[in-house]
Amino acid sequence: MKEKDEYILISHGDGGIKTQELVEKIISKYIKNPVLDRFEDSAILHGCRQKLAFTTDSFVIDPIFFPGGDIGKLSVCGTINDLAASGAVPKYMSLSLILEEGLSLNSLEKIMKSIKLALSEAEADVLVVAGDTKVVNRGSADKIYINTSGIGIISQSRELSPSRIMPGDRIILTGSVADHGIAVLSSRKEFNFKTKLKSDCAPLNNLILESLSCSKNIHAARDATRGGLARVLIELARSSKHDFHINSSKIPVKKEARAICDFLGMDPLYIANEGKMVIFVTESDSRKVLDTVRKNRYGKDAEIIGFVEQKGSGNVILETVLGTNRILDLHYSEQLPRIC
Amino acid sequence: MKEKDEYILISHGDGGIKTQELVEKIISKYIKNPVLDRFEDSAILHGCRQKLAFTTDSFVIDPIFFPGGDIGKLSVCGTINDLAASGAVPKYMSLSLILEEGLSLNSLEKIMKSIKLALSEAEADVLVVAGDTKVVNRGSADKIYINTSGIGIISQSRELSPSRIMPGDRIILTGSVADHGIAVLSSRKEFNFKTKLKSDCAPLNNLILESLSCSKNIHAARDATRGGLARVLIELARSSKHDFHINSSKIPVKKEARAICDFLGMDPLYIANEGKMVIFVTESDSRKVLDTVRKNRYGKDAEIIGFVEQKGSGNVILETVLGTNRILDLHYSEQLPRIC
Repeated sequence: MKEKDEYILISHGDGGIKTQELVEKIISKYIKNPVLDRFEDSAILHGCRQKLAFTTDSFVIDPIFFPGGDIGKLSVCGTINDLAASGAVPKYMSLSLILEEGLSLNSLEKIMKSIKLALSEAEADVLVVAGDTKVVNRGSADKIYINTSGIGIISQSRELSPSRIMPGDRIILTGSVADHGIAVLSSRKEFNFKTKLKSDCAPLNNLILESLSCSKNIHAARDATRGGLARVLIELARSSKHDFHINSSKIPVKKEARAICDFLGMDPLYIANEGKMVIFVTESDSRKVLDTVRKNRYGKDAEIIGFVEQKGSGNVILETVLGTNRILDLHYSEQLPRIC
Repeated sequence: MKEKDEYILISHGDGGIKTQELVEKIISKYIKNPVLDRFEDSAILHGCRQKLAFTTDSFVIDPIFFPGGDIGKLSVCGTINDLAASGAVPKYMSLSLILEEGLSLNSLEKIMKSIKLALSEAEADVLVVAGDTKVVNRGSADKIYINTSGIGIISQSRELSPSRIMPGDRIILTGSVADHGIAVLSSRKEFNFKTKLKSDCAPLNNLILESLSCSKNIHAARDATRGGLARVLIELARSSKHDFHINSSKIPVKKEARAICDFLGMDPLYIANEGKMVIFVTESDSRKVLDTVRKNRYGKDAEIIGFVEQKGSGNVILETVLGTNRILDLHYSEQLPRIC
């Protein structure tokens, strides 16, 4: 098929022969498994006798290929990480594509390969069990948008929830912030700066699983994506109604990321990540969990960046490098649209 | 918020304050429930001790408002019907929105209202438990795209599957075909014909449930959406490897739909529906199931349109009104893009 038609045509989305060809030859071969291969209306999931986690995310990142990843890897890791943050073992995923007429089939195939690779990197036996493909006319999308929804299994003892955050909890950040946002920004046409920074896009399910195995006192986890570390901390502080005290000198920011942020007048704490978690754990277990996180390939640079105060009203207090304190607040408008 | 900003802005999608406002004031209020209101990374689903069905669908219909429905109603009914076709009782749904900068908030609110109404029309206690909202710049989408994924519960005895289709099965069609496609087409700018036809968009979960309650001998069901009745029959015949014999005079087509199809040179069998099922049931139970379907508000015009032959190789044989037979085949390119 690829020799004759190198680009997505409107007819690829019409449910006819060309849709079928597209699905068979470029899409389903990368995510084949017996549940999906039945090609029925719904995937049938057997043996879910535990509590389940269910999540959804649409990815509209621009550009679709960027240093360290692409929209395919992102759409797998994003959903896996949302499940992991709930303490769930990712099991099933749906994959829904909205393709723009004119997308090159080579790009689509590259993205599907990347989806397959990300699924294997997660080492979690995640199956894509449901799918859908739509095509819209040229100018009605920007190359490709992907939705993934995910189902994970939670064992009774392991549910994580912001509602379990307690005063005294230590806050672990699993590595440096701002890499994803800067890497994506650097690959946009309108920016003419070069950087070796890569997106941190990665599946963190095993990092969380290993942490849960070493401690029964982990209370919550959240991946710091759109809106960056700042947004996650602000949201969790508000919902837990406790103040968080964060030591800014402990937050890992790569030298190059900081330099670019300074140059562009952006705050790295507000820049999106795609492979970083914040983990809330009791003080007594915090060192043990930190060591465990650091042993994972995606957690080498983890740090304890702060703690949950005994009292407060849901603020995030940032201790600056000068020793002064300031309260973090949501930006009215984020710096980077279409970052995930 | 609506007085000042009547339109979607890029900042509505950035994860900051405006995103939060949008979600709180226009989106979540229509789908509120305790599971969703936790606003965590994944919804936690309790008590799923049975087999589950899982499905996903992205909706890119043009125009987003059409006679008989809109993209919101469609996105709820589409996923409910996919679950119902597997014999599942719909339970949980995710809702992921891709909004184009410039979409009017009134339109978004109208769509959310319609989602709420469709959920209640389904009378199935379906909860939207996970959500996501993204915004893309003007010209990078066409107003709004919606993905819904759904989870349903299958009781052991009730799983429906094309693999269970047997020779001798009767094929019930739950009502007239082509209404949805014609209604949508008539509301497109480039067509200047008027019709009173409305989309048949409807939740069919109870129609299926009532059928399953009256007969243990229903083998399969499928909703006849993109590609129309023809596509569904062709796909099911191929996968079951049995020939289907269809009597074209038994297929309900509204007079007005047929006239428009004739005028435009289109075949109603290939035109999308959003509220019609084909049901495969043993001959002995077929009359009973037909009567039950006809009692449902969405099944009044149901007919037995054909049967599964004793032998064959997966063809759909259409007996024409002239008494001749022809084999239905997939069109190389469907007549109507962006019909769902």
